[in-house]
Amino acid sequence: MKETTKKPVTVLGLGDMGAALANALLENGHPVTVWNRSQAKADPLVAKGAARGSTVADAISASPLVLVCLLDHASVHAVLDPAADGLAGRVLVNVTSGSPDEARELAGWAAGQNVKGFLDGGIMAIPSMIGGPGALVLYSGSRAAFEAHEETLGAMGAATFVGDDAGLAPLLDLAMLAGMYGMFGGFLQAMAFIGTERVEPEEFTTSLLIPWLQAMTGALPEMARQIAAGDYSSTGSSLAMQTSGVGFVAFSESLGVSGELMAPLERLMKQRVADGHGDDDLSSVVELIAKPSDR
Amino acid sequence: MKETTKKPVTVLGLGDMGAALANALLENGHPVTVWNRSQAKADPLVAKGAARGSTVADAISASPLVLVCLLDHASVHAVLDPAADGLAGRVLVNVTSGSPDEARELAGWAAGQNVKGFLDGGIMAIPSMIGGPGALVLYSGSRAAFEAHEETLGAMGAATFVGDDAGLAPLLDLAMLAGMYGMFGGFLQAMAFIGTERVEPEEFTTSLLIPWLQAMTGALPEMARQIAAGDYSSTGSSLAMQTSGVGFVAFSESLGVSGELMAPLERLMKQRVADGHGDDDLSSVVELIAKPSDR
Ligand SMILES: NC(=O)c1ccc[n+]([C@@H]2O[C@H](COP(=O)([O-])OP(=O)(O)OC[C@H]3O[C@@H](n4cnc5c(N)ncnc54)[C@H](OP(=O)(O)O)[C@@H]3O)[C@@H](O)[C@H]2O)c1
Ligand SMILES: NC(=O)c1ccc[n+]([C@@H]2O[C@H](COP(=O)([O-])OP(=O)(O)OC[C@H]3O[C@@H](n4cnc5c(N)ncnc54)[C@H](OP(=O)(O)O)[C@@H]3O)[C@@H](O)[C@H]2O)c1
Repeated sequence: MKETTKKPVTVLGLGDMGAALANALLENGHPVTVWNRSQAKADPLVAKGAARGSTVADAISASPLVLVCLLDHASVHAVLDPAADGLAGRVLVNVTSGSPDEARELAGWAAGQNVKGFLDGGIMAIPSMIGGPGALVLYSGSRAAFEAHEETLGAMGAATFVGDDAGLAPLLDLAMLAGMYGMFGGFLQAMAFIGTERVEPEEFTTSLLIPWLQAMTGALPEMARQIAAGDYSSTGSSLAMQTSGVGFVAFSESLGVSGELMAPLERLMKQRVADGHGDDDLSSVVELIAKPSDR
Repeated sequence: MKETTKKPVTVLGLGDMGAALANALLENGHPVTVWNRSQAKADPLVAKGAARGSTVADAISASPLVLVCLLDHASVHAVLDPAADGLAGRVLVNVTSGSPDEARELAGWAAGQNVKGFLDGGIMAIPSMIGGPGALVLYSGSRAAFEAHEETLGAMGAATFVGDDAGLAPLLDLAMLAGMYGMFGGFLQAMAFIGTERVEPEEFTTSLLIPWLQAMTGALPEMARQIAAGDYSSTGSSLAMQTSGVGFVAFSESLGVSGELMAPLERLMKQRVADGHGDDDLSSVVELIAKPSDR
C-alpha cells in the first residue's frame, strides 16, 4: 500500500487511549490532525508528524474522518457541540466508552448535523495493545461509513462491524467486559483459596488455571445454544448435581476466606433447583437475571 | 507397551465417573476388578472384560492399586471401613470429591491401615472426557505411590502430582472450579446483556466472547505475580480508572437486567478505592477476600 493512498484522520482527545490511536494512525502513514483540551498532550504526536488543530473546528476541517476519544458522553458533547457546523459531510467515529443509549443519542445528534455517516466504537484493548495484533475494536452504526473507512480503522486494531444500530458496539463491549470481570473474579477467588497453603500463585496460574479456563471456554457455545433455544436440558452436569456438594460459600468460610464473590451464582443455581429446574444445565440460570420480557 | 506389563487395578464405585475411569483402564489393557453397591452397574464393565468383586474385600484383594470413586467422604468410609484390613500393603487412591481436610483425614486413616501409599485426586473433567486428551487429574499425597503408578493413572487423564500434603489436590481442584464458575457467571451476565437486543448468542460467543476471554487470560500471570509479591501497583488499568464509569450494576438496571452476579466484585473494587488503593491494579482486591493471616 503506498503512503499516498492513506486517508487523512482527525483525532479529538489525546488521553492515554486517544494518543495511542493517533500514534497508530501516524505509524500507518495516515495524515493525522490532533486536538486536545490541554494542548501539551499533542506535542509528542506533532513531533512525530501530526498536524496540530488550533481549535476543534480547525481540527475537524482537516479530515473527512473525525475520530473522538474523550472521557465520557458529556465530554463528547462539550467538545463537539460548539463545532457542530463543521461536521456536515464528514464521517464521525466515536470510540469514547458509553452506554448503548448514549451511542444512539449521539447517532441521532450527528444525523442532525448532516454527517456523512456515524459509527460508535467499543475498544477491546488497553492503549499499549493499540495497533498490535491483539487489539479489537467493534463498530456499529453506518455500514457504508465502516466500509469506506475500514482500512483506516484497521490501523488501530482489528475492526469488526457488528450492526446498524449504533448502540450495538457499546452493548457488546459491555457484555465482553462482563465476561472478563467474571473470569477475573473467579481468578481472585482461586488466588484466595491457594493462599491458604504454600502454593505458588504464578506457577498455579500458568500451568494449571489458564489451560483449564481455556479448555472450559469449550462449554460456552453449547450453553449459548441452550440460551438461544430456551431449552436447558442437562447434557451432563445438572444443576442438582452441581449444587449437591458443600458449596463454595461454606467451603470458603471453612478456609477462613470470604466467599462473597461466589455467593450470587451459588444462590441463583440453588434457586433454579428449588424452582424445579434441577435437571437443567447451568445455562438455565440466565432465566433469573435476564430482562423478563426477553424470555 | 505390551499388554502384559499393565498393572491390575480395583475400582470401587461405578457411578458416572467411576464407570468412566474403569472403562478407560480396561481400554488401556489393565486387568480391572470392579465393585459397586448396586451390582447392576458392574454389568457393562464385566461384559467388556472386567472381573467382578463379589464383596469390597474380595475386590480389594485383587489388585495392588485400589481406586475409590464414590459420592462423598461419608460414603468412602462407609465402603472402606468394614474392609480396612485388606488395604495393608496396597496403594489407595481416592478420587471422590471432597475438602482438603477430608483428604487429610483419609490419608491419616489409610496410614493407620498400613497402606503402601495414599493419594487423593481431583478430577478436572466430566465422565465423557475421561481417557481423552482434555482430561486432567491432580494428585497429592505419597509421591512414591504416584511415581510407581503414574502410567496407570495416566490411562484416565493427564496425571499431575501437586504435592505431599494430601489436601492439596482437592484445594487446587476447588480453586480451579472457582475460576471456572467465575467465568461462567460472567458469561451468563454477557448473555443477559445481549438478550436485550437481537444478538445471536452462539455467534457472539464463538466469534467475539471466547477469543476475548482467551486473550484476557494473558493478564492473569501478571496479577498472580502481584499477589505473590503483595505489590499491586497499577501497570495500566488502575482501580480508580476501572471504577470511574457508570458501573455494571447500574448499567444492568438501566437495561432491565439483574446485576447481582457483578455486584460483589464491583463493591470490592470500590471499597479498595475508598480505602486509598485507587492506584492499584484489580489484583489488589484479593486483600479483601483472602484469609487475613495470609496477608
Ligand atoms: N485506557 C483504556 O484502557 C481504555 C480502554 C478501552 C476504552 N477506553 C475509553 O477511551 C476513552 C478515553 O480513555 P483514556 O484512557 O484516554 O482516558 P484519559 O487518559 O483519562 O483521557 C481523557 C481525555 O478526555 C479529555 N476530556 C475529559 N473531559 C473533557 C472535557 N469536558 N472537555 C474536553 N476534553 C475532556 C481529556 O482532556 P485533558 O487532557 O484536557 O484532560 C483527555 O483527552 C474513555 O471513554 C475510555 O473508557 C479506554
Ligand atoms: N460426574 C462428574 O462430572 C464429576 C466430575 C469430577 C468429579 N466427580 C466426582 O466423582 C465422584 C463420583 O461422581 P459420579 O458422577 O460418579 O456420581 P454418581 O453417578 O452419583 O455415583 C455415586 C456413586 O457413589 C455410590 N455411593 C453413594 N453413596 C454410597 C454409600 N453410602 N455406600 C456405597 N456406595 C455409595 C453410588 O453407588 P450406587 O450406584 O449403589 O448408588 C455410586 O457408585 C463424586 O465425588 C464427584 O464429585 C464427578
